[in-house]
Amino acid sequence: MRIKLINPNTTQGMTDAMARCARAVASPGTEVMAVSPTMGPPSIEGHYDDALATPGLLMEVARGEQEGCDAYVIACFGDPGLYAARELARGPVIGIAEAAMHAASVLAPGFSVVTTLGRTRGLAWHLAQRYGMERFCRNVRATELAVLELETPGSAARATILEECRRALDEDGSEAIVLGCAGMADLCAELQDTLGVPVIDGVTAALKWCEALVTLKLNTAKRGEFARPLAKRYVGELAAFSPL
Amino acid sequence: MRIKLINPNTTQGMTDAMARCARAVASPGTEVMAVSPTMGPPSIEGHYDDALATPGLLMEVARGEQEGCDAYVIACFGDPGLYAARELARGPVIGIAEAAMHAASVLAPGFSVVTTLGRTRGLAWHLAQRYGMERFCRNVRATELAVLELETPGSAARATILEECRRALDEDGSEAIVLGCAGMADLCAELQDTLGVPVIDGVTAALKWCEALVTLKLNTAKRGEFARPLAKRYVGELAAFSPL
Amino acid sequence: MRIKLINPNTTQGMTDAMARCARAVASPGTEVMAVSPTMGPPSIEGHYDDALATPGLLMEVARGEQEGCDAYVIACFGDPGLYAARELARGPVIGIAEAAMHAASVLAPGFSVVTTLGRTRGLAWHLAQRYGMERFCRNVRATELAVLELETPGSAARATILEECRRALDEDGSEAIVLGCAGMADLCAELQDTLGVPVIDGVTAALKWCEALVTLKLNTAKRGEFARPLAKRYVGELAAFSPL
Amino acid sequence: MRIKLINPNTTQGMTDAMARCARAVASPGTEVMAVSPTMGPPSIEGHYDDALATPGLLMEVARGEQEGCDAYVIACFGDPGLYAARELARGPVIGIAEAAMHAASVLAPGFSVVTTLGRTRGLAWHLAQRYGMERFCRNVRATELAVLELETPGSAARATILEECRRALDEDGSEAIVLGCAGMADLCAELQDTLGVPVIDGVTAALKWCEALVTLKLNTAKRGEFARPLAKRYVGELAAFSPL
Amino acid sequence: MRIKLINPNTTQGMTDAMARCARAVASPGTEVMAVSPTMGPPSIEGHYDDALATPGLLMEVARGEQEGCDAYVIACFGDPGLYAARELARGPVIGIAEAAMHAASVLAPGFSVVTTLGRTRGLAWHLAQRYGMERFCRNVRATELAVLELETPGSAARATILEECRRALDEDGSEAIVLGCAGMADLCAELQDTLGVPVIDGVTAALKWCEALVTLKLNTAKRGEFARPLAKRYVGELAAFSPL
Amino acid sequence: MRIKLINPNTTQGMTDAMARCARAVASPGTEVMAVSPTMGPPSIEGHYDDALATPGLLMEVARGEQEGCDAYVIACFGDPGLYAARELARGPVIGIAEAAMHAASVLAPGFSVVTTLGRTRGLAWHLAQRYGMERFCRNVRATELAVLELETPGSAARATILEECRRALDEDGSEAIVLGCAGMADLCAELQDTLGVPVIDGVTAALKWCEALVTLKLNTAKRGEFARPLAKRYVGELAAFSPL
Repeated sequence: MRIKLINPNTTQGMTDAMARCARAVASPGTEVMAVSPTMGPPSIEGHYDDALATPGLLMEVARGEQEGCDAYVIACFGDPGLYAARELARGPVIGIAEAAMHAASVLAPGFSVVTTLGRTRGLAWHLAQRYGMERFCRNVRATELAVLELETPGSAARATILEECRRALDEDGSEAIVLGCAGMADLCAELQDTLGVPVIDGVTAALKWCEALVTLKLNTAKRGEFARPLAKRYVGELAAFSPL
Repeated sequence: MRIKLINPNTTQGMTDAMARCARAVASPGTEVMAVSPTMGPPSIEGHYDDALATPGLLMEVARGEQEGCDAYVIACFGDPGLYAARELARGPVIGIAEAAMHAASVLAPGFSVVTTLGRTRGLAWHLAQRYGMERFCRNVRATELAVLELETPGSAARATILEECRRALDEDGSEAIVLGCAGMADLCAELQDTLGVPVIDGVTAALKWCEALVTLKLNTAKRGEFARPLAKRYVGELAAFSPL
Repeated sequence: MRIKLINPNTTQGMTDAMARCARAVASPGTEVMAVSPTMGPPSIEGHYDDALATPGLLMEVARGEQEGCDAYVIACFGDPGLYAARELARGPVIGIAEAAMHAASVLAPGFSVVTTLGRTRGLAWHLAQRYGMERFCRNVRATELAVLELETPGSAARATILEECRRALDEDGSEAIVLGCAGMADLCAELQDTLGVPVIDGVTAALKWCEALVTLKLNTAKRGEFARPLAKRYVGELAAFSPL
Repeated sequence: MRIKLINPNTTQGMTDAMARCARAVASPGTEVMAVSPTMGPPSIEGHYDDALATPGLLMEVARGEQEGCDAYVIACFGDPGLYAARELARGPVIGIAEAAMHAASVLAPGFSVVTTLGRTRGLAWHLAQRYGMERFCRNVRATELAVLELETPGSAARATILEECRRALDEDGSEAIVLGCAGMADLCAELQDTLGVPVIDGVTAALKWCEALVTLKLNTAKRGEFARPLAKRYVGELAAFSPL
Repeated sequence: MRIKLINPNTTQGMTDAMARCARAVASPGTEVMAVSPTMGPPSIEGHYDDALATPGLLMEVARGEQEGCDAYVIACFGDPGLYAARELARGPVIGIAEAAMHAASVLAPGFSVVTTLGRTRGLAWHLAQRYGMERFCRNVRATELAVLELETPGSAARATILEECRRALDEDGSEAIVLGCAGMADLCAELQDTLGVPVIDGVTAALKWCEALVTLKLNTAKRGEFARPLAKRYVGELAAFSPL
Repeated sequence: MRIKLINPNTTQGMTDAMARCARAVASPGTEVMAVSPTMGPPSIEGHYDDALATPGLLMEVARGEQEGCDAYVIACFGDPGLYAARELARGPVIGIAEAAMHAASVLAPGFSVVTTLGRTRGLAWHLAQRYGMERFCRNVRATELAVLELETPGSAARATILEECRRALDEDGSEAIVLGCAGMADLCAELQDTLGVPVIDGVTAALKWCEALVTLKLNTAKRGEFARPLAKRYVGELAAFSPL
């Protein structure tokens, strides 16, 4: 099967790192297509970035339908454009926050999200509510690391994240950690080994879940809310996005 | 004061109609600037339309900040881009679903939303939850009218909407009606007269609430989640949106 | 239009202060009638005070209907008698907790209430739940100031309140402050200037919202729960309250 | 022990009927004092009635404290003045809606309330929420009988109530009935025999629960929200209510 | 009447202590049968213990039906097997967590549970949610005492529990304590005297509530979810449990 | 990897059918061990059956740990003994209701459960709440088919289930179906083809999810609530279950 992993920001280094993590766990018959959009923000650190990352993401989903993709992973913890993408796609579309929170909820009585900037905490809480996961989410903790700092070799990011995870376990009554940024995917195994609790990276969780749903021949419901966008002609700079 | 009323779709006829409704209730000192974006969908009937209407909307907010606007109304019942717009704006930004639901909740023990297409019902419920209004929202009813049908002279839209409002009052235990589309604004008074219950149009409700908040010198909180977007360089077709 | 601002306690000094605040923000055509009841407690600091303030409040609403009032503000943060008043009034009736919480919820992702005595904290939480605002209300903080202390010139009340607001911003993850007592109305502007976040006083918020609803020709729903009280003869000391 | 059963309306016939029901189930050592207030409405059919019944009720609680009462039953399904009464009383104060809903929740997975006028449905739902019982309350059904009609010999009230109970069992997925008016207390046994499901009358439920709590030496918490009203001088017609 | 008090663990010393507490508050006509199952765990400190305590408990309920028992108390704070027991019993079945939380909710605006091991905290929260009591439950605090330590003469258990109760009152905003283990029943009076707030032991609360419901002729609803188990033949070591 | 699929009832025919379904979707390297317990009920149709199926299920989990199982599927829609099983297992334990509801929630805005007997509806709702899925679960519909009827060749079960699914789509506003009994697993593909919406069988969903979590090296959190049962000696017929 062919699964498209879309990093909604335009930083190719992050996309490549996610692709490595995803391919390391993919089943033999799975082709992982990892892309960044050709337009939009280099990192997503708030609602405005999120909104402007969505057109590029949706273009990649539309292309994916042409390319015969069976499912999609939206690889940013804010799950931007998730419901819009479901309108475009025949197969499943999974957000990494969604996948990670669901996985955490079957492994532990409660989890903490450890994320980047404090200004995104509200977004993570909003997703927990939307997905019904607020009863499992004990806290959303910010490290105040910028997303792209995670990419910087030799930065203190790793130590900062580990320390915040420790605080989560000590203070929140959590028994698992959800990594709150796709850019943390490659820290997952090491953190889990060090902390001795489940540490969940949404990129790999979403990928495996897509594989599962495709194997089960389960697709996005097309009966109502996620039906194909109605045909209409958009105008101006966004005319190319017209659903026709 | 200067309030910018942004119809996030590109149908100027609807924008003009809303502007008339808004100006009819504006206070003497209020200038209502009513605009449609220069890009995006002509009507918003699902998550994809919603996502692609957002960039044009945000551009109008960004322009509004240059133009000295004191507050903004997002005049589509899905309240697209609301939180992203709050990051851009110094003053208040109110969505029409938000304003209408809040108003209904202080006038009646429960309300029904009467909207256009059934595929948008989920979005209205989602907003009710986000705003804490689900305990007042008794039902979201679709007329299955397309948004632009509302604009067609001589259509049966008026009769269809009236009938659905009647059903809402009879079957939902509701005591007020919230109009679920900005394009219904000009039906509001007539429906209220006919039905004998409060009928709330979000366009005028949001306008008056903006006026109120500006008079009270209350602005969007800039301490965290709604702080200005971080400066970064966007790429590709959306480079013009870079927050710098 | 004529809006009646009812301070449900009998302390005229507080009523006068509120009237000044309200008139300072009222629109040119708005007449603000500010009154205290002729019976009941001089301050409301618990459920018993609240219950005994209600008859006097309701008498003022009944009188207001005779006087041609278009809307009513219930100017005590417990919003006493709100639903009973809605049965009496044709026009809107807004409680100051209701107005303040709604305003805060459109300006900030979360707010803290800063109130007087700790024994009233439960009441504020109860209102947050009733209005659907619990998801925005991060904390209700007591200063342990008695209501009438706020009226005492030269008291330390101002400093105590400021300090509690600061703690709210530091510890609660709140980005706005809701003043939890009508007697704090005249501190609002100063606190907002000092703290740099929205500080919301319900008295002025409710007044402006009443103006908005009256302009929009929106009245209290009279179809069911808030229909006029059924005619019946009350007995004893309360016979004068008989709805006839 | 001495338990005061307060019918908050002034209709002595209803008080007498409740007293009979209560005494029929009271333990040997329990003295049931059944009273109506000397002031207020003859029946409670909305928020205004509820608010004006509260002063008379509170006076009876205050007198009860003088009379050495160990606990109080508030015998109107709206549980008027419950929290205010708890401030006055040393011992437990139980509302009949509270007692009936709690009892129903331990006997059946879900219950329906069958009440009098439709306009009181909202109040019953509000209580269900306040007491945490909304997950057990499947419906609140109105018979549109006036409270005092229940007292009329030869009326069709009994048949109407029975029919509504049957509908509740057929349509709501409920497995128990909560009687939504103290005036229905004397129908309880007959309805239960006819329907073959638990039918709960709050008057007797609250009485037995008061007995239980008194035996267990459990009193109202006086540490905060329900502490004695603060001493202050009320004015006007309500001066006699001053907590001193 | 005959009420069966079932301690679901096999530690007879605990059963005897509970029996003493229960008989001390039982009404004259109440026979309290106190038993432990003949099979299962000596203490219940987690989900596995809970699951394996349930068969023995259910056998005692089945026997109780033969013995003419009118009601049952499940005397372990996890309320194991509660709904299964309701299928077997004609009369009421009350769990001690259920009874204690309900009692606390009518006496205080909020309570804290003080329990034994931290690993059982999740179970107590789960029960609070199931019973609709999460809005009253401010915290569940673990003392990290093993259940059987409570039985050890001369242990520090008493002091540890008292200290944790004090912390609950100071830090949780609670105004009552719910004892989170049946083995704490005999500390209840002393703790209440020392702390000056209601301290609720579920064993006695459930017993009195059973008495109340039996007096009121209220039984478990048998219309659906709690109907008698369907007749079928179980196999293997559990064949004796076959509902036939 | 080795995944143990435990049918908690003792009907081998059902176990065999589930095994076929599971093996049809398992990855090449996955060994599916499918077992029924050696003790307990032949079908699970209520809380009592559920409670008595749990010991046999737990014995199979304990054996699975000896057998080197990497994960477990609890293949009954009531998810019996889920949390107790998590205490025993090192790897993931997934209930089929849990897996099916989670899957449905990422494919459709809302789903209906179609189950067997009406008396189990409450249990399904309870699980939806526990897993945070109540906002996606639009209805739980009973066909009133007994579990073993599903096994009878030539029965009308298939037609009855199909009809109930159709009603769900027409009346509940659902866009996906969750099959509410493990015995329906082999109808899944046919129903999906006929209905044209996602139809989710929890047996295969849980199996694939187990595979995913094992591949991701994610195990059950052992830090607190799901830590190994404390060592203690059980007595009587259940002595063999002692965690030692």
